[in-house]
Amino acid sequence: MPLSDLDNLVIVLVRPRNPLNIGAAARAMSNFGCHRLRLVNPYKLAFREARSAVGASGVLRDAEEFKTVAEAVGDCALVVGTTAVRDRKLDHPPKKLDGHSAAILRTTLEHSRVALLFGSEKIGLTNDDFSYCHWLMSIPTHSQNISMNLGQAVAVCLYELARDAHSEPPTEKVEPATAAKTEQITEGLLEALRISGYVKPGTDKLFEKKARQLIVRMKLEAYDAKLLLGMVRQIVWKLRQPPKG
Amino acid sequence: MPLSDLDNLVIVLVRPRNPLNIGAAARAMSNFGCHRLRLVNPYKLAFREARSAVGASGVLRDAEEFKTVAEAVGDCALVVGTTAVRDRKLDHPPKKLDGHSAAILRTTLEHSRVALLFGSEKIGLTNDDFSYCHWLMSIPTHSQNISMNLGQAVAVCLYELARDAHSEPPTEKVEPATAAKTEQITEGLLEALRISGYVKPGTDKLFEKKARQLIVRMKLEAYDAKLLLGMVRQIVWKLRQPPKG
Repeated sequence: MPLSDLDNLVIVLVRPRNPLNIGAAARAMSNFGCHRLRLVNPYKLAFREARSAVGASGVLRDAEEFKTVAEAVGDCALVVGTTAVRDRKLDHPPKKLDGHSAAILRTTLEHSRVALLFGSEKIGLTNDDFSYCHWLMSIPTHSQNISMNLGQAVAVCLYELARDAHSEPPTEKVEPATAAKTEQITEGLLEALRISGYVKPGTDKLFEKKARQLIVRMKLEAYDAKLLLGMVRQIVWKLRQPPKG
Repeated sequence: MPLSDLDNLVIVLVRPRNPLNIGAAARAMSNFGCHRLRLVNPYKLAFREARSAVGASGVLRDAEEFKTVAEAVGDCALVVGTTAVRDRKLDHPPKKLDGHSAAILRTTLEHSRVALLFGSEKIGLTNDDFSYCHWLMSIPTHSQNISMNLGQAVAVCLYELARDAHSEPPTEKVEPATAAKTEQITEGLLEALRISGYVKPGTDKLFEKKARQLIVRMKLEAYDAKLLLGMVRQIVWKLRQPPKG
């Protein structure tokens, strides 16, 4: 399952203040194969602290610092600002982060750099920041709490962008049990139930179907069927032992 | 754009140690309209600290604490463990978090509780934890850094689950068995196997997991679970009968 190539993606954190968030953003980037981190006017101490943290990633080490948004996005063909919106009036309502907007970004990423902007923890991106953006994007969240943690917002956006482009065929490599094996289990179970007195004489035929259906509905894998058959056979063997003494 | 209803979803953090991560998980939950948080053996101080943090959410205030995974998932019909895998040998490879696996979870959530398990920051979920899971799921990440931060992993999973529901409806209207019922069957089966001599002394612990997984993977419906439990109990009763004579 190859992830989308995010080599051309630039994550821009605008005025981040919390070193943990900077570190978390960098970590999410390395999780999703994205390595261009830029910071606009970060709180100095925060940036230094994030960089010196144990396990700080290469992403963080190579992070670039800029004074303005304009400089930070200078080489990008598409600039997208993230926002939680709703409480602000915006000329252009944001696109929702989803398969559609992600596809647009991925298409652009094939040949150009794309900047994804995240604002500061307290106030997000300002209208001035927005003015550098081709469009805005918001993560669909529950109305009761629309504001996401910075590191988590970065992770969710990258997940959606990296998500494998070709909407995934459900591939499971499990070998199902054969009907013959399933039937052997049914027979073993029925034998155990007869010896145990669970099956009353005369109800046998009806009950047999019921038991078979039960086993069939388990949709056992080959491995599990073999295991279960061994168990059932051992139990039947024990039940058949003649009473001692 | 209505988000999917995650009212039935239970987020289970197993042995979390970092209060910030517990807080971050709770925050992501409130972002995506999910409110049932359970902690299994959390590091006490961390839980206390997370709860007393400024802005701690209702999710955190209402979080429940459990001693074991079994208890934490007792009322859940489907238990899914998250893992970064790749370095472990697993009998059953995890499903990828994607539209398909999310659709399965959403369908189950329509009528039953679903538990989504996240392991501790250091080691994730153990094989013992896995034994309570119907299946495992991993977030597709870049091979260079597969291990996600706990709070970010929770956010990404919830984003995918809340993602707008339309497009994939594999609907099956069956009532699945609860984890508690499944565990009763496992216990009965183990007892039968002990009496039958299938389980050799000393191998008990390892085998217990294997048997639990077998039963869990059957994904029994409530009706079938009841039937099977009755059968197993009758067999155990018979096996326990003292030898005649």
